[in-house]
Amino acid sequence: MSVARIAVVAGDGIGTEVTAQARKVIEAVLPNAEFDDYDLGARFYNRTGEVLPQAIQDELARHDAILLGAIGDPSVPPGVLERGLLLKLRFDFDQYVNLRPSKLWPGTTSPLAGIKPGEIDMVVVREGVEGLYVGAGGVLHKDTPAEIATEESLNTRHGVERVIRDAFARAQRRERRHVTMVHKTNVLTKAGGLWARTFAAVAAEFPEVTTEYQHIDAASMFMVSNPQRYDVVVTDNLFGDILTDIAAAVTGGIGMAASGSVNPERTYPSTFEPVHGSAPDIAGQGIADPAAAILSASLLLEHLGHHDEARRVSEAVAAEVASRTPGAPLRTAEVGDRVASALS
Amino acid sequence: MSVARIAVVAGDGIGTEVTAQARKVIEAVLPNAEFDDYDLGARFYNRTGEVLPQAIQDELARHDAILLGAIGDPSVPPGVLERGLLLKLRFDFDQYVNLRPSKLWPGTTSPLAGIKPGEIDMVVVREGVEGLYVGAGGVLHKDTPAEIATEESLNTRHGVERVIRDAFARAQRRERRHVTMVHKTNVLTKAGGLWARTFAAVAAEFPEVTTEYQHIDAASMFMVSNPQRYDVVVTDNLFGDILTDIAAAVTGGIGMAASGSVNPERTYPSTFEPVHGSAPDIAGQGIADPAAAILSASLLLEHLGHHDEARRVSEAVAAEVASRTPGAPLRTAEVGDRVASALS
Ligand SMILES: CC(C)[C@H](C(=O)O)[C@@H](O)C(=O)O
Ligand SMILES: CC(C)[C@H](C(=O)O)[C@@H](O)C(=O)O
Repeated sequence: MSVARIAVVAGDGIGTEVTAQARKVIEAVLPNAEFDDYDLGARFYNRTGEVLPQAIQDELARHDAILLGAIGDPSVPPGVLERGLLLKLRFDFDQYVNLRPSKLWPGTTSPLAGIKPGEIDMVVVREGVEGLYVGAGGVLHKDTPAEIATEESLNTRHGVERVIRDAFARAQRRERRHVTMVHKTNVLTKAGGLWARTFAAVAAEFPEVTTEYQHIDAASMFMVSNPQRYDVVVTDNLFGDILTDIAAAVTGGIGMAASGSVNPERTYPSTFEPVHGSAPDIAGQGIADPAAAILSASLLLEHLGHHDEARRVSEAVAAEVASRTPGAPLRTAEVGDRVASALS
Repeated sequence: MSVARIAVVAGDGIGTEVTAQARKVIEAVLPNAEFDDYDLGARFYNRTGEVLPQAIQDELARHDAILLGAIGDPSVPPGVLERGLLLKLRFDFDQYVNLRPSKLWPGTTSPLAGIKPGEIDMVVVREGVEGLYVGAGGVLHKDTPAEIATEESLNTRHGVERVIRDAFARAQRRERRHVTMVHKTNVLTKAGGLWARTFAAVAAEFPEVTTEYQHIDAASMFMVSNPQRYDVVVTDNLFGDILTDIAAAVTGGIGMAASGSVNPERTYPSTFEPVHGSAPDIAGQGIADPAAAILSASLLLEHLGHHDEARRVSEAVAAEVASRTPGAPLRTAEVGDRVASALS
């Protein structure tokens, strides 16, 4: 019997290379997992003119989770694959928790002076299906001096409350039990008011969790000057997009940055992918670091209830990264092999 | 005859302390400048219940520039003074260029490892009167499970084009002649499209300036991993709010961060203020660093056409900061005196 049916969307560039390693590692800890490959991304789009045919989306929906590599190639106009595939899956599969842990792992180096591995350990819980990402807005008098363009941020109590509750539940299970809410309530008074009032209401349900509020500009600064202070951060879709890239930067870049676009109720499959892109410049050479992809597989295992396997995978990645000789060249497949063999 | 009529809004907390030094320094280089003090901010609001009476705003409008300290105190609900004073002046006085230089000065330390003074030198040109800051949006079914809240970003070709042209004109006068445009065109396709098309059109007028585009998430990461790469950055109101705080963080915090909310045509007065806030925790002790306030005064002088005086002031601040003994306590008035006496 299959313990997990996983759709694999390896995608473009280094996406295929790193995803092969992530899959190898899942196979090592979950030998009965089933995998179905889906050829989507820039190559598929250039060949067929389609981004995500409905029939394929229906098949994806029948899986427990989606393991995604990276999507994108200079041959495709910006926005087409992002909106048509990545964001479409987030919205159609109601992946409202966008989960992004950031840790400074032993063996990695922060660009910040004087910060040692272990000192940064946070998870950003980013709202995934509301805010400015909904695509509302319009353009009038395009390409004339009278042109105007609007973007609308849509926020619901329903959507804000469930993601804030998810963040508190995660904080409750962590050691420091602290949640920082980030918004811009002094300028975005309507959405900010909704977020602030909802945050206060949910906080009352979690008396053991301490809380804090920061404006996005201040949080962006503190993320650089004092990233150690963060435990769980909850914020909206766009602010989360920005903060998680700063968090990745201060923990040594996107080499170790994993993410999950999660539907916690498992009504729909969740997507797990490294934060990095398809990196066409180094694709095909077998030198991409698969650590972020394998850590994303660990988030996938966790989401599917395989807690022990998830923990073992992330520990194995941590050990592999810590054992690297600084500056030595890296082979994608060898990293995957080392992690997988440590686990079998 | 007065060479400059300057309205002084020293404001709250350390605002009054640092502004006194900035004024002292302007007096040293421009002995004929006239100053009028306006008592606005938290104390004024708590006393009168008003944020900015129309009669005072009319008086401010008759000045050449506004020298502002800092506004805000825990006794005033968040948003009241920001929206009622700072943002109101930006909008009513059409201060569409929000100018924020970031330099790593000798004598200051970046939290980034291995970056030396002189290596970071950029200016962010942030759009000041459009985007999500316009206050459009609404709330329905407030405080019920059915609540929704919206925020609307409004962008015009008129508004985008003039700030982009300002950024190019500044780049043209700088050594590296490079402009980076930052937006999120792959998600915010309407506003992003307007920004991208306008950027391309204006770039064609400045063949000597090289250009680059980055998404806000990538730019936030590069601002940490490689801030040296930026020369002039042009972006919208909210992205600029975030990026300038990251830029301040990587250049050692907001101690040296100056800003101007500028109406380049001088139809209305422009406002110059340090990026830091009123810092109630250290107010009244005479220990706030006035460097950012004095550098803001230098931007004011530059804006009013006193180029030589502006340059001399910023050089004098740089020299004072470079001469400090690391770790030694700082006295606000002594810093102002040293800079002023170096100039007279
Ligand atoms: C590719 C893009 C649409 C996406 C986003 O903005 O969410 C990416 O930046 C991310 O963070 O997953
Ligand atoms: C106080 C606030 C309204 C303001 C802004 O968001 O613009 C501040 O953060 C700034 O950057 O000047």
